[in-house]
Amino acid sequence: MSKFLDNINSPNDLKNVNIDDLPELCTEIREFLVDKVSKTGGHLSSNLGVVELSVALQYIFDSPKDKIIYDVGHQSYVNKILTGRKNDFDTLRQLDGLSGFPKPYESEHDQFITGHSSTSISSAIGIATANLLKGDPSYTIAVIGDGALTGGLAFEALNNANKNLNLIVVLNDNQMSIAPSVGALSSYFNKIRSGRLYASSKKEVKSIITKIPLIGKPINSLLGKIKKGLFYLFLPKGVLFEQFGFNYLGPVDGHDIKFLTQMLERAKTMNKPVLLHVMTQKGRGYKPAETNPNKFHGIGPFNKETGETSPSKPSYSKKLGEILVKRAETNNKIVAITAAMPDGTGLCDFKKQFADRFFDVGIAEGHAVTFASGLAKQGYVPVFACYSTFLQRAYDEIVHDVALQNLHVIFAIDRAGIVGQDGETHQGLLDISFLSSIPNLTILAPKDGEEFESMMDIALKHNGPIAIRYPRGFYSYKITKSPINVVKVGKAEIIKPGKDATIIAYGKMVKTAIDVGYLLKKHHIDAEVINARFIKPFDEATILKSINKTKNVFTIEDAYLNGGLASRMQKLLVRKKINSSYFFGYPDEFIKQGDTSEIEKKYKLDKFSVANQIVKCIKNAKKNRK
Amino acid sequence: MSKFLDNINSPNDLKNVNIDDLPELCTEIREFLVDKVSKTGGHLSSNLGVVELSVALQYIFDSPKDKIIYDVGHQSYVNKILTGRKNDFDTLRQLDGLSGFPKPYESEHDQFITGHSSTSISSAIGIATANLLKGDPSYTIAVIGDGALTGGLAFEALNNANKNLNLIVVLNDNQMSIAPSVGALSSYFNKIRSGRLYASSKKEVKSIITKIPLIGKPINSLLGKIKKGLFYLFLPKGVLFEQFGFNYLGPVDGHDIKFLTQMLERAKTMNKPVLLHVMTQKGRGYKPAETNPNKFHGIGPFNKETGETSPSKPSYSKKLGEILVKRAETNNKIVAITAAMPDGTGLCDFKKQFADRFFDVGIAEGHAVTFASGLAKQGYVPVFACYSTFLQRAYDEIVHDVALQNLHVIFAIDRAGIVGQDGETHQGLLDISFLSSIPNLTILAPKDGEEFESMMDIALKHNGPIAIRYPRGFYSYKITKSPINVVKVGKAEIIKPGKDATIIAYGKMVKTAIDVGYLLKKHHIDAEVINARFIKPFDEATILKSINKTKNVFTIEDAYLNGGLASRMQKLLVRKKINSSYFFGYPDEFIKQGDTSEIEKKYKLDKFSVANQIVKCIKNAKKNRK
Repeated sequence: MSKFLDNINSPNDLKNVNIDDLPELCTEIREFLVDKVSKTGGHLSSNLGVVELSVALQYIFDSPKDKIIYDVGHQSYVNKILTGRKNDFDTLRQLDGLSGFPKPYESEHDQFITGHSSTSISSAIGIATANLLKGDPSYTIAVIGDGALTGGLAFEALNNANKNLNLIVVLNDNQMSIAPSVGALSSYFNKIRSGRLYASSKKEVKSIITKIPLIGKPINSLLGKIKKGLFYLFLPKGVLFEQFGFNYLGPVDGHDIKFLTQMLERAKTMNKPVLLHVMTQKGRGYKPAETNPNKFHGIGPFNKETGETSPSKPSYSKKLGEILVKRAETNNKIVAITAAMPDGTGLCDFKKQFADRFFDVGIAEGHAVTFASGLAKQGYVPVFACYSTFLQRAYDEIVHDVALQNLHVIFAIDRAGIVGQDGETHQGLLDISFLSSIPNLTILAPKDGEEFESMMDIALKHNGPIAIRYPRGFYSYKITKSPINVVKVGKAEIIKPGKDATIIAYGKMVKTAIDVGYLLKKHHIDAEVINARFIKPFDEATILKSINKTKNVFTIEDAYLNGGLASRMQKLLVRKKINSSYFFGYPDEFIKQGDTSEIEKKYKLDKFSVANQIVKCIKNAKKNRK
Repeated sequence: MSKFLDNINSPNDLKNVNIDDLPELCTEIREFLVDKVSKTGGHLSSNLGVVELSVALQYIFDSPKDKIIYDVGHQSYVNKILTGRKNDFDTLRQLDGLSGFPKPYESEHDQFITGHSSTSISSAIGIATANLLKGDPSYTIAVIGDGALTGGLAFEALNNANKNLNLIVVLNDNQMSIAPSVGALSSYFNKIRSGRLYASSKKEVKSIITKIPLIGKPINSLLGKIKKGLFYLFLPKGVLFEQFGFNYLGPVDGHDIKFLTQMLERAKTMNKPVLLHVMTQKGRGYKPAETNPNKFHGIGPFNKETGETSPSKPSYSKKLGEILVKRAETNNKIVAITAAMPDGTGLCDFKKQFADRFFDVGIAEGHAVTFASGLAKQGYVPVFACYSTFLQRAYDEIVHDVALQNLHVIFAIDRAGIVGQDGETHQGLLDISFLSSIPNLTILAPKDGEEFESMMDIALKHNGPIAIRYPRGFYSYKITKSPINVVKVGKAEIIKPGKDATIIAYGKMVKTAIDVGYLLKKHHIDAEVINARFIKPFDEATILKSINKTKNVFTIEDAYLNGGLASRMQKLLVRKKINSSYFFGYPDEFIKQGDTSEIEKKYKLDKFSVANQIVKCIKNAKKNRK
């Protein structure tokens, strides 16, 4: 039983709470969060960090008339709790359950589906501009982390915030992206933070000045010092944002809720646009998460008392790190790049062992790729490890700065295909489609860890851009019993010969194809199972040979059919005489959250559905020929 | 005869010129530029602006050991002149001629193919980082315009410039993108420029201070003023860049070549990284271009004496502007967005007539799209007019911020397909491929101006994201004699019925298809010519009906085959009984510069090549059946 939280089912309920009781409510919300997320898994650290901020925003503003937009929406749990979705938290991130991200179809208090970083200021400017055109005095509030601010999109937006917009940007400064923030901005914030908080003294400029020996001297004598940089001691804290035309307010303690509400009230009355700098602590109020915010960023179920999780299983991410560390020991040209995800992409050990050859560029996928092009130009072999869905953000840089120059950059594409609980913003279903039409690019996918090693060696020796895509989560080192058939560029692998049907898959779906092969045996269908290995260049010869023999052809992929392997096969099949065909993959729609295996069942991509469909196709084809 | 220029065929020759003779050399280069570009057409204004800068860079640095990278490389003509390519200028931008952009395959003095904006700092950081790892003390110089600096990629890079890099960023501040620069940065630069130039007084801070009444008073009394913003008068000019960790030098007069060389020498000795702020004038030294730099940004052949060009012909860009102005008069929800190209995209009249509904966001395509999502969310109908090749830069924003939310944003995609002289960085060949796999998106292309109007009306009424793509250059209002067959969503148009072959095209290639139809008549082939109109949703019913009748199917498109209409058709053709087929479009390679019609001939996409190939296909099919 929670004294205050139990009675809150809407922002109006919240507004009825006495301001002095808000700290107690925040404590209840923290308990609720830890309790729920320990059971379902989810994003914990960031949400614990924004409890007071989320409460204060709903307390002071009038949502949904005033629009509150949470950047990288995984920090929106508290907002969900306050806006009538408290009782859905048992279904968090599950199929047909509560989403872990803002979803306008869940609530009018969610404005956009935000799963990618750095978008909030842009979309908020769009909304505020519309309000300005309409003469609507409502507020638009973008809540953006200091990490998200390293994304170029956020800067493009800062540069475009018109003076007349009723716009408040709340900078949620927790010194972290998922990993600690990097770059010049991060140093800049450190400088700001090293001063006192706005809360503690409104005379902070004065207090700094009295500490330096120049006090009382005429300005002229100050001039000499200016050139030596001492001048910067006097800079107003928000000078960077002031240069962008914002009125800066802060920094304020993001866990002092009373003061936060006062500052938000103040922001309402200031000339617009306003940037309110709020300092928060990721994981706040839950010791294990305070100690290790990174671990509790996105986490599976855990023991609430101890913070313990089940030991992590082998994954492609880890494997990437292992391979790179091993190869980098003998090849000093290998360098690794991440866009704020050293842990997620498995590069932590590389970072430790080869600090000078490791680059975390912040949430800046575009820069990561163009930066890689410069390194490659000078003879280094950059490996940019990036989640599939985030690599989209560097599409033009891949085309213009890497592929066009035919530079040797390796794209290690993690979380390709269905990723599960994070839902539609995180599915890695588009990569094959958007990469396939780029000239000069080689694209491949391993069926298991052993093949991944062999493919990475191909990639390291390659001359030109090359992308290896692999899925999220658990993997097997070896899924076949036979010794490895070493990977050769552009060559598919026949895993099991057969005469009745050709089944072609790549990456994780090779396992499905093998299993389907066994299931088909029971139906007296002898399937030839082919691991395509390369999506581009595509081994047409091997595959045509098989098709000419079996006359029945099936592809299975963990990607959109539109632009996927299906498209390559369809091209190959024009005017070929075949009896039956079917292309298994994802249809032309955004795919919502759910357990990966549940989603596969829903879209009939599990081995049983696939086998049944193939049996049906072949039967129909026989019937038609009779 | 040019006294100095005649003797310069390499940077070494330049280094032998006495520094006092450099101004004369610059004059000769300007004459050369105006003379050559008046005959071939090309980018004039920006190159006239960087004559002294380009000369100074090659004079002071040791290229190619030191790497000079020109952002949006159309400002690299002078560098080409100085690096042995002077005599190729008669072939500028022509098929197999001198490129209008840096090309490493032309010269070791060109580092990257740069046709898209804002990439130079990122790639320079890559090169400088490689040099740091190697212990190579060479310099890396990025020359970037104030316009290009509005692109988020440039900021991601600024945020990542490590202190130890031997990196010099030369900010070429001409107050213009192609159009005048916009946004907060632009105001910031204006403030800097309003002070005196670095050249004229090294005591500029002092000189400002003596003008304000506070002089001589103790610092304490200054404090009150600080809060009122007067403090900003004292800000060192480069404070924004200093916050990013750069040592700022400037602003300096970019046309005072002697001083420029001194400043570059000084930059060499400063702690790195350095930002050298150079002020230049677009069009410098050629009156017509000084007066109208925008017109002479990218221009066709012109009269050297008068600056006159042939009157501009009707184009889709102009037509877009006309349609939008007309519709906006009665529909106050229509808003128009450009990323620094109000002229190029035809929006100048809209800008004049509906200033409050027109938004130039700078070179920031990503922000343009996400900003549009906010406007759409509030019930406005944003039209983002953008060149096809630059829309790539907003791929993730199209997916994540517009399509996923199914918001009504109109993408008016200009310069789609082959664009001609600008070459591989500017071809609009990828749009169909990268857009087709995005769920919720409707894609269409008009065959002529009349159809464009009808399609824009469809787009304005549509509920969801919709993209209309159209080519560069001259267009006809009407290419058929019949009255318009009004556009219906997802419906193709049968332009000419026939029984022997189905020819499907969209956009500009419909004209080719019609012409091919006539040519085929002579070979007694009665072709059914279909205007697909919609690439997505694709009118499978109409097309299948035709194919079932003719059994011979051909598609023609001004796009990559890979992921284009060809892919959609191939999907449709699996297990269909047809006699012959051929898919006309661009192969999987980057397509270099040349006159559009020459390129079409080269890739056998002109009407004669297409007709011949179709005749051959149908003959072969008949032979095989006998």
